[in-house]
Amino acid sequence: MRSAQTTASECPVARSLDEVGDTWRMLILRDALVGFRRFDEFEQNLGIAPNILAQRLGALVRDGLLEKRPYQQRPVRYEYVPTPKAREFAVVLAALVAWGTRWLSPEGAHVTLVDVTSGETVTPVIRGRDTGRECELHNMKFAPGPQAGAEILGRVERLRLRRTKQI
Amino acid sequence: MRSAQTTASECPVARSLDEVGDTWRMLILRDALVGFRRFDEFEQNLGIAPNILAQRLGALVRDGLLEKRPYQQRPVRYEYVPTPKAREFAVVLAALVAWGTRWLSPEGAHVTLVDVTSGETVTPVIRGRDTGRECELHNMKFAPGPQAGAEILGRVERLRLRRTKQI
Repeated sequence: MRSAQTTASECPVARSLDEVGDTWRMLILRDALVGFRRFDEFEQNLGIAPNILAQRLGALVRDGLLEKRPYQQRPVRYEYVPTPKAREFAVVLAALVAWGTRWLSPEGAHVTLVDVTSGETVTPVIRGRDTGRECELHNMKFAPGPQAGAEILGRVERLRLRRTKQI
Repeated sequence: MRSAQTTASECPVARSLDEVGDTWRMLILRDALVGFRRFDEFEQNLGIAPNILAQRLGALVRDGLLEKRPYQQRPVRYEYVPTPKAREFAVVLAALVAWGTRWLSPEGAHVTLVDVTSGETVTPVIRGRDTGRECELHNMKFAPGPQAGAEILGRVERLRLRRTKQI
């Protein structure tokens, strides 16, 4: 679901969702990041209708998440390769794997994250790069950044007011 | 967008998206996690139509992400409080803040993550809890977990085949 409202949002979460906040796009990215590349591979993995797949792949290319490259000339065939922007999105997927496994897979893990170097199973946690401390809701907060404008500052002010009133 | 296909998926990413993979639900969670609680607050922050907001709040309550609590008796009024399941989802939002700021905010940060203890700005990175190593695409891989079934194993096999054929 895309909404015109989020397109112009200042919020990085809203902006991110405007590009990837659609189940199909996120699942295509997931597949591309583990190594699938071709139209028929995405189609087979996802059980997605070809017209929907074509539309989502086009959006991911347009938004700079996948690069369309020819891998065969006669007839010309393309594969879809994740860009650096998409590759960094892997951390969001890792966070979803961890959360989904913990809260939505009571029967146990279907997928694990593995450290390539050591082969160890990895439990991903988010830490501050410099602080080294784990980021959890109780020890982090979102604050306006240098570019915060009316939208973010309005939200912060409304939050301050609600706390002041202790509503 | 929900699809019947993802509902029964083994994949924790697909399962997660089935519960939160909708822009409105993710933005409502974002607002609830920073401290907003009431219908009219979500409505004002998001500019969302009341019927859509009611539907999404209902889904979040049904899926155990928000708890509906009365805060006033005559007339009875409810607020929506994030559950532990939702609170742990904050790490996914932190990952989206970091990615969205880096890739979609060329003008600079509108929102920053701040360490509550020290007041420092935090750059969130994902590390293995035990390995301590940063999880990036080049040093992690997704592998079948103990409960992997036909879906996950089929994907792994297709990936192995494509690598063998070097297609």
